[in-house]
Amino acid sequence: MVNAVLLGHGMVANHLVVGLERIKKGDIPPYGVPLAKREIGVSIEEINIVASYDVDVNKVGKSAYEIARNVFKDTIPVPETLKDLVISKGVHLKSVEGMPIKTTSIDEEYDTLRDMVEYFIDEWRKHKPDVIVNMLTTEYGKTFDTLDALKAAIDNNEASSFTASQLYAYAAAEYAKRVNPVVFVNVIPVFLANDPAFVSLYESVNSVILGDDGATGATPLTADILEHLAERNRYVKFIVQFNIGGNLDFLALTIPEKNKMKELTKSSIVEDILGYDAPHYIKPTGYLEPLGDKKFVSLHLEYVNFNGLKDELYVNVRINDSPSLAGMVVDLIRLGKVVIQKGYKGTLYPINAFFMKKPGPIDAKSISKINAYSELLSFLGIK
Amino acid sequence: MVNAVLLGHGMVANHLVVGLERIKKGDIPPYGVPLAKREIGVSIEEINIVASYDVDVNKVGKSAYEIARNVFKDTIPVPETLKDLVISKGVHLKSVEGMPIKTTSIDEEYDTLRDMVEYFIDEWRKHKPDVIVNMLTTEYGKTFDTLDALKAAIDNNEASSFTASQLYAYAAAEYAKRVNPVVFVNVIPVFLANDPAFVSLYESVNSVILGDDGATGATPLTADILEHLAERNRYVKFIVQFNIGGNLDFLALTIPEKNKMKELTKSSIVEDILGYDAPHYIKPTGYLEPLGDKKFVSLHLEYVNFNGLKDELYVNVRINDSPSLAGMVVDLIRLGKVVIQKGYKGTLYPINAFFMKKPGPIDAKSISKINAYSELLSFLGIK
Amino acid sequence: MVNAVLLGHGMVANHLVVGLERIKKGDIPPYGVPLAKREIGVSIEEINIVASYDVDVNKVGKSAYEIARNVFKDTIPVPETLKDLVISKGVHLKSVEGMPIKTTSIDEEYDTLRDMVEYFIDEWRKHKPDVIVNMLTTEYGKTFDTLDALKAAIDNNEASSFTASQLYAYAAAEYAKRVNPVVFVNVIPVFLANDPAFVSLYESVNSVILGDDGATGATPLTADILEHLAERNRYVKFIVQFNIGGNLDFLALTIPEKNKMKELTKSSIVEDILGYDAPHYIKPTGYLEPLGDKKFVSLHLEYVNFNGLKDELYVNVRINDSPSLAGMVVDLIRLGKVVIQKGYKGTLYPINAFFMKKPGPIDAKSISKINAYSELLSFLGIK
Amino acid sequence: MVNAVLLGHGMVANHLVVGLERIKKGDIPPYGVPLAKREIGVSIEEINIVASYDVDVNKVGKSAYEIARNVFKDTIPVPETLKDLVISKGVHLKSVEGMPIKTTSIDEEYDTLRDMVEYFIDEWRKHKPDVIVNMLTTEYGKTFDTLDALKAAIDNNEASSFTASQLYAYAAAEYAKRVNPVVFVNVIPVFLANDPAFVSLYESVNSVILGDDGATGATPLTADILEHLAERNRYVKFIVQFNIGGNLDFLALTIPEKNKMKELTKSSIVEDILGYDAPHYIKPTGYLEPLGDKKFVSLHLEYVNFNGLKDELYVNVRINDSPSLAGMVVDLIRLGKVVIQKGYKGTLYPINAFFMKKPGPIDAKSISKINAYSELLSFLGIK
Repeated sequence: MVNAVLLGHGMVANHLVVGLERIKKGDIPPYGVPLAKREIGVSIEEINIVASYDVDVNKVGKSAYEIARNVFKDTIPVPETLKDLVISKGVHLKSVEGMPIKTTSIDEEYDTLRDMVEYFIDEWRKHKPDVIVNMLTTEYGKTFDTLDALKAAIDNNEASSFTASQLYAYAAAEYAKRVNPVVFVNVIPVFLANDPAFVSLYESVNSVILGDDGATGATPLTADILEHLAERNRYVKFIVQFNIGGNLDFLALTIPEKNKMKELTKSSIVEDILGYDAPHYIKPTGYLEPLGDKKFVSLHLEYVNFNGLKDELYVNVRINDSPSLAGMVVDLIRLGKVVIQKGYKGTLYPINAFFMKKPGPIDAKSISKINAYSELLSFLGIK
Repeated sequence: MVNAVLLGHGMVANHLVVGLERIKKGDIPPYGVPLAKREIGVSIEEINIVASYDVDVNKVGKSAYEIARNVFKDTIPVPETLKDLVISKGVHLKSVEGMPIKTTSIDEEYDTLRDMVEYFIDEWRKHKPDVIVNMLTTEYGKTFDTLDALKAAIDNNEASSFTASQLYAYAAAEYAKRVNPVVFVNVIPVFLANDPAFVSLYESVNSVILGDDGATGATPLTADILEHLAERNRYVKFIVQFNIGGNLDFLALTIPEKNKMKELTKSSIVEDILGYDAPHYIKPTGYLEPLGDKKFVSLHLEYVNFNGLKDELYVNVRINDSPSLAGMVVDLIRLGKVVIQKGYKGTLYPINAFFMKKPGPIDAKSISKINAYSELLSFLGIK
Repeated sequence: MVNAVLLGHGMVANHLVVGLERIKKGDIPPYGVPLAKREIGVSIEEINIVASYDVDVNKVGKSAYEIARNVFKDTIPVPETLKDLVISKGVHLKSVEGMPIKTTSIDEEYDTLRDMVEYFIDEWRKHKPDVIVNMLTTEYGKTFDTLDALKAAIDNNEASSFTASQLYAYAAAEYAKRVNPVVFVNVIPVFLANDPAFVSLYESVNSVILGDDGATGATPLTADILEHLAERNRYVKFIVQFNIGGNLDFLALTIPEKNKMKELTKSSIVEDILGYDAPHYIKPTGYLEPLGDKKFVSLHLEYVNFNGLKDELYVNVRINDSPSLAGMVVDLIRLGKVVIQKGYKGTLYPINAFFMKKPGPIDAKSISKINAYSELLSFLGIK
Repeated sequence: MVNAVLLGHGMVANHLVVGLERIKKGDIPPYGVPLAKREIGVSIEEINIVASYDVDVNKVGKSAYEIARNVFKDTIPVPETLKDLVISKGVHLKSVEGMPIKTTSIDEEYDTLRDMVEYFIDEWRKHKPDVIVNMLTTEYGKTFDTLDALKAAIDNNEASSFTASQLYAYAAAEYAKRVNPVVFVNVIPVFLANDPAFVSLYESVNSVILGDDGATGATPLTADILEHLAERNRYVKFIVQFNIGGNLDFLALTIPEKNKMKELTKSSIVEDILGYDAPHYIKPTGYLEPLGDKKFVSLHLEYVNFNGLKDELYVNVRINDSPSLAGMVVDLIRLGKVVIQKGYKGTLYPINAFFMKKPGPIDAKSISKINAYSELLSFLGIK
């Protein structure tokens, strides 16, 4: 068994808990779970979601069943077993500031970061998590870079420079130190596995932090297309990639600072894979409500081939962002348990490289996803 | 130095000889040559095109310069050094039957397959080729399967069941036996490296045959996109891939038998990569003259992701087919020399898997191109 | 009230009867019915489907409710009122030969064309149709050109040169002569409104025949895009349009003769609209079952703009063919009643030009659909 | 003969003067000139570009030949006759502020708006323009709404609230009053024909002002596609349109105020044509230098068809913006002469509706371009 805690009960969590139950019941195949057909030591059926935290007043205290029914209506069957998972109150620290969400959070009850940390340690003593998955809405946060700076921020209660993600990650490390090793998985575009401070912190508590920014959407495909061109020594003249969606994540990205974080995690692939910084415009671009969770991506690029001839490529996709990420999280939870059992600590590039858009640690390169997959299999000793 | 002989002086040959000279002169970078930046033991500058054969009455006896000038007009500069390469008369055996081409060939002078074989052996005694590249227009031919059947066909002068490609490949092996080992590279969709008869033949003369069907066009990209989906366990519901072009190759494909050969080499990727035979319509589809050498490909597919959600992908490309293949041939010539020096014989899957659409030997699987590239680098001892 | 008879109870009929009932019940808005918001004299609510004919042994004798339920499953609600419409046995004349359909038809009971005609006249005496809509699967048929030739074929019982569509159209005209004027609407790609013989026939019985080939799919959009370019004097260098679908219509098009009929009705737009025959490849291309009724169309064209500059256009669509045609049929039924009341006879180009791909009469030009719409409104005295 | 003055010697002017000369010399056909094949009373050959104004220090004093050669290099032949057209110094009023351009302008010599107006009147006394075409880079300006407010701004020398476009338009009206009627054609996204103040001004001097924002790019095509859907009563769920280019216009649009003007002129088509405000994201989106003047546009929309079925449309285009607009300007110059001769005054919706994105006057609706073309022909008495 592997116990998992979810942070942020948005669309990804909805798909994760519903999809997981449907797979367990045998109602659907485990499509979208990358390693579903591989023996990695922990099966999908062993995953147990023990708690989920949010700050939306319309979610806290409700069951995962009720929330999912409300979102999916009759389009996706919601298993009744989800009535047992009730959403707990999380920490806010202004993580959804600027969004049209009414919040309730433990910020109302606790004054210091330290107290908040203790609150979650007590929570998790009850739930005994092996893996904690951060799926909050995109936040804007600075990195601490050194463990000392990070600890000082807690000690001095610098709440204004602390994001909810960072607080959760810190609390999880403290829990690991006092109780049991955990794996903290960060699938949103804030820098945790890319912040040396957090990597040191997890190393010091014999635990693992994975991240950052789950590799869904069009960027992983773009990475593999760029690798395809690079391996033929085709010279890419420019790359354009537009994204537009209608979920909360795209709404958040209309707030400039959040957009900036996302752009950083998306653009690094170009130079890393091609070996030169081909001119590119790769951005989260817009919000349009009726697109819902199924975003539209348009990719266009030109390259020079042998004898100076020029080719053009156009890619249009409509993709469901949240379920795609949820499928990845299923594997990340399984892998979390695996790496804890094997005694790893710090962060693990071979896992991050495949599953993340901005794989930590900070100085790691983006590589194509197909190559990352090969390396992942090697790391796991498969094939 | 590596001496190369070309069979079929069409658009691929035009781009090959012109592009090669321009790279040698330093006028253009070696874009489109996959391994250009890798040290493989033979440099691009060492390539020496010593002869080129064709049966088009408008080409035989003319210089590569004259032909290229006529085709490229002022769009691509043609180096004057190409005046020294004069196109020789080749064998026909009905290889361009049904096409709007007036031919002249050695068929007019020789009655038996055996005599034709001897003719080319004499030719090549003069030119001393290391590598012979088959770039004829797509032909329809049966495989011989056993070396005995192949030899019997020559002995019994079964001209009607012999294609020009097969005759050239047989002659090259005979030349190898009597004079020097060669590498025969087949980049068109006839089965040579996929015919056990020819693989045995080359093994028996300590030489190598590579093929079949150079991996250009949209199919290699489709292969990598399918691998991308397979690695995420996304279930592909269907694949549509249309192709239309305006060059001689597409004109040839309007002849049903030639079209069939092409379809065979294109479709095998689906089951090999996905692991199941997703319904697909992947065909060379049409000919439309004004598209010229820059074909249009439209790819559309749907897949099921986590929790049963469905995504859609649309890819449109305009790509120059001939220069793309010419860039690959540059590397195949270099690699030909390398593998001769190392004493390989038969056929070499690690090279075929990356460079060919239907990699020989016959029972070999198609794999994604990005994975094939990794394996190629290992085979070559690079990285 | 307007009484309508349907010929061919396939997907178009399914959508027509279901959509019509849902609109009448106020469950859905009349989207896809071009003139829904216009006062034309007959409302959608007045349409009464009095009979429907087919030769599929799995449909004859079943109710429209049962058939629609079987096809739509739970994706579209099927009103119970459709239990009253039971599918009648039609004429075959090999119209679905070559298709995977087991048939039952009046061909088994009647020996001569004349007898079959009388059979339908008797049928329709019961149903009192105002409008008869031909929605059979695409057939291949020759035109008769003169009324005498047509009549002679009936008199001489030339069953082998008669299609089911032609027999129905002939029977409807006879019914009109003896009982009441009717409008025969042909929305499939056989030539009826484009056959002078049938136009004369309908004129002689004070009735109207409309056709041919309902203007759905991508071709009407292509027509408007070409008009857009023509009005800017942009010179179209080529046009590629691929189509692939998974319904019975696309399966039928894998039979070469049927495909040919379709190509004829699609390609005429190019020269008619542009004023020159731009090179084009516009064909029904392929069948792939999982696409179902939602076909995929890929359009690509290039044109020369001012100062010799070249632009490129790529259009990809996924469109539901059958409901789109069903929406048009709703208006054609209403318009049928309108033109009968006004005493029109023969065929009516202003209606055909907007609603049909190959608008009759035979010498009529295709015009852009937006212009056809303007002319339609004028013809109807609207605006 | 028709004498034309150009304001702003950018890419549009380059294509206009070069394309015009090439057409006059018979070197190229008049592709991209909408009414080229129509007899409208003034031929393309009669157009005489008498002066062109700019504020770029690298253009003022240079010949149109020199500038065009520098831009087009060897890609487009530049006629030597253009050596006679020397670019004059224009007014700045901060119109290119924020752009990487070093300027020289009459602002350095004149202190008041009134003096600047007089300067241009004197200029044009020499050149005797019939038509003055505003092709400056996009500016951000407020409308004056009443003629009194406009005149007061000049009298009070309110230079900070005056754009270069407005000053030119005012000067042209003054010239018209004192010397000869003119037509002022505004093809950039500032409001002139949409400012009642300027329409009144031109009415008062028996002259015509046409505008605003020349209808090139993808928006006119989008308009016709929307009309196509509206005429079938298909319900558009959403529209996404991305634009990215590499010319000065797109660089200007990275300045938020300029972007805003553009968005206003683009979005009005949705509600005007569909009759409801379908959710849309239609924006000038980004700048990427290597795209140059050939922008990339991606359009995606979904609509509901009959019986509730949903279709999807994807359009990708690469289009040369400047020559497209230049071709329109050729006709606008011809039409300018025509309407002066006929004694029109104020603004002319039938011309604006076809040629402009935001057709004046202010309360005018956008209509589809194909319908606008029909109305234009009627207005001109053609067909």
